[in-house]
Amino acid sequence: MGQRAAVVGAGHSRFGAVPEGPRALLRTALEGALASVDRGLDRRTIERGYLATLGFGGWQIGNASAVVAEELRCPGLPTVRIENACASGGFAVQEAARAIGSGAADLAIVAGLEKMTDVSSARRRYWLGVSGDTEWERQAGLTFAGVYGLIASQYLARYRVPPEALAAVAVKAHENGALNPNAHFQKRISREQAAAGPKVADPLGLYDCCPVSDGAAAVLLASEATARRYTDTPVFVDGAGASSDFLAVQERPDLLGFAASRRAAAAAYRAAGCRPADVSLVEAHDCFTIAELLALEDLGLAPPGAAGAMTLAGATRRDGALPVNPDGGLKAKGHPIGATGVSQIYEIFQQLRGHAGPRQVPNARRAVAHNVGGAGATAAVTILSVG
Amino acid sequence: MGQRAAVVGAGHSRFGAVPEGPRALLRTALEGALASVDRGLDRRTIERGYLATLGFGGWQIGNASAVVAEELRCPGLPTVRIENACASGGFAVQEAARAIGSGAADLAIVAGLEKMTDVSSARRRYWLGVSGDTEWERQAGLTFAGVYGLIASQYLARYRVPPEALAAVAVKAHENGALNPNAHFQKRISREQAAAGPKVADPLGLYDCCPVSDGAAAVLLASEATARRYTDTPVFVDGAGASSDFLAVQERPDLLGFAASRRAAAAAYRAAGCRPADVSLVEAHDCFTIAELLALEDLGLAPPGAAGAMTLAGATRRDGALPVNPDGGLKAKGHPIGATGVSQIYEIFQQLRGHAGPRQVPNARRAVAHNVGGAGATAAVTILSVG
Repeated sequence: MGQRAAVVGAGHSRFGAVPEGPRALLRTALEGALASVDRGLDRRTIERGYLATLGFGGWQIGNASAVVAEELRCPGLPTVRIENACASGGFAVQEAARAIGSGAADLAIVAGLEKMTDVSSARRRYWLGVSGDTEWERQAGLTFAGVYGLIASQYLARYRVPPEALAAVAVKAHENGALNPNAHFQKRISREQAAAGPKVADPLGLYDCCPVSDGAAAVLLASEATARRYTDTPVFVDGAGASSDFLAVQERPDLLGFAASRRAAAAAYRAAGCRPADVSLVEAHDCFTIAELLALEDLGLAPPGAAGAMTLAGATRRDGALPVNPDGGLKAKGHPIGATGVSQIYEIFQQLRGHAGPRQVPNARRAVAHNVGGAGATAAVTILSVG
Repeated sequence: MGQRAAVVGAGHSRFGAVPEGPRALLRTALEGALASVDRGLDRRTIERGYLATLGFGGWQIGNASAVVAEELRCPGLPTVRIENACASGGFAVQEAARAIGSGAADLAIVAGLEKMTDVSSARRRYWLGVSGDTEWERQAGLTFAGVYGLIASQYLARYRVPPEALAAVAVKAHENGALNPNAHFQKRISREQAAAGPKVADPLGLYDCCPVSDGAAAVLLASEATARRYTDTPVFVDGAGASSDFLAVQERPDLLGFAASRRAAAAAYRAAGCRPADVSLVEAHDCFTIAELLALEDLGLAPPGAAGAMTLAGATRRDGALPVNPDGGLKAKGHPIGATGVSQIYEIFQQLRGHAGPRQVPNARRAVAHNVGGAGATAAVTILSVG
């Protein structure tokens, strides 16, 4: 796509039930991204701003992108809000990469934000629920935990996968979250604890579900020539793919796997000129433990039904053959809707540059970010690599 | 910006208080855009979809972009929602143009939609109000009519403009709307009627305010090479500019004129390589009559304070020196938030190709579309021309 885009900076707030409001969270992520640029960057050279958010804490619901210019102290910066539910961040990064690809900008910033814990429980359910099909599923009472519970039941039955595979995803997520100072959950759990959580939507229990989190993340993208002025180790966007599907899960031919993820992945691999076997790090959309298993299969990283065994064998741990979600994932790091897809790129930026500290995975050169909206009605897959 | 984008098709629903729901409105606009392509177009060749909407009728609030793929009957089409309040449509068109510019797509569709009349009055106010500054202005009771009333008071006083100038904008809008079968208001009004409307926010009366409308519009954009396969008269996107400003009006140094519009216009003229004097048709964001006067000045088409006299002299009528809003504008055609910016491009597509029927303006070759979010916190200006 035109000139190649690269990530040159990334910032991240603490994820969790934190006291900060939306503006402060956004500021932390934006300033963090600016401060992270190796050779410094004058904020006035940023040409476009993107804001990924579903509800902005139920506060500045319309026209919220203008807040990015305010909090960045860049009056007049062209800004736009991108919303594709939980995939807002992934789509916003792709829009920014295309703006750079088109030559319309040499430097763009993408921020993702959600403030979810200081609103009423009813409003929280509303902001979460609105991204599922409204006519036939949400208003009939089908929650996201419900959808993923149905998927998990069928997955375990069809492929004869033991429920321990789900627990293994949770244990690995918490192991990684414990090493991430920005994670919502920073403590390890045992497989027994994970399996013994109170049921939420059978077979999914408490430890199979990502939390409701506040948080923000931001990344700075530049054209290749501009990127090299700011750093010797830009992280290149090699390929972007996206797709959609019926909002209502009942309209899809099969529950196991998301066609949108599969199509987005195929497009991303094609654009990047690589294959699943070339991937050495994965940021997968694990809103529920079952979702991580599906993601690995949809991304072509495991054959159908094989992701459970792969996880049980430890392949997806930080020191495994294919580390998945070394930051703790949505499951342990947390899932502030609009921030999630941007946070995935933040983690890839740290990992591919070898700056991930105690949670660093060895030898990662090429990573895939997989961000899903709702129960798979939209999906964005982005492939990145380091020089 | 990379390869040049061109409009090759456009569709439009009726605007107004119409019985159709969001899906039907969207379908009308999408199918209209497809049907309008001179040499026909296989919908399966569309590579990206954009949805501009603020509230989707309060129904599919999250992840709504997937509905575009459903209603277009293009399963899997990558779709994304763009929301910048009343400027959502203008920004969505610009995102699509950049996707084409980057080479990521050769054919993209942009739909704008709002369903506003079959929701409760409280919810309607909410969906309208949310785009103003929440912390300091909306929650203190400042409505959009209030903001524009303050602006109008100051405008009339500072420039010694007679209130008849506002009425003249309304009369001209209704004259044009009367010739537009899709307009919300299709009847003429006299200057006396316009001036005698009940006061809404002094000096603005009923006839100074755009209505609350349902509606949808869609445009098809293609790369230049692809466009020429579909039509002999593509309408080219010559330049796109955008900007932002403080959400709170009280933080801006001056009420008269929107800095975001001025900066967006400067960027668009620069990108298009033309000057205001080269423009022969304007689609201006006239959510209130005063807004059209401000727009003409912000776009460099009238000196500060001179747009009133220009309007009173008839220059902005269909047969005037510079026709403005020949479709009736937001004021008479209606203002279904997300649809408005797309509808502006629809009108320019018809006018520049000479297909506008009874409301056709003579000799239009280059047009500017001006789309404002909230009370000027975001703005998108797009310049288009025909062969």
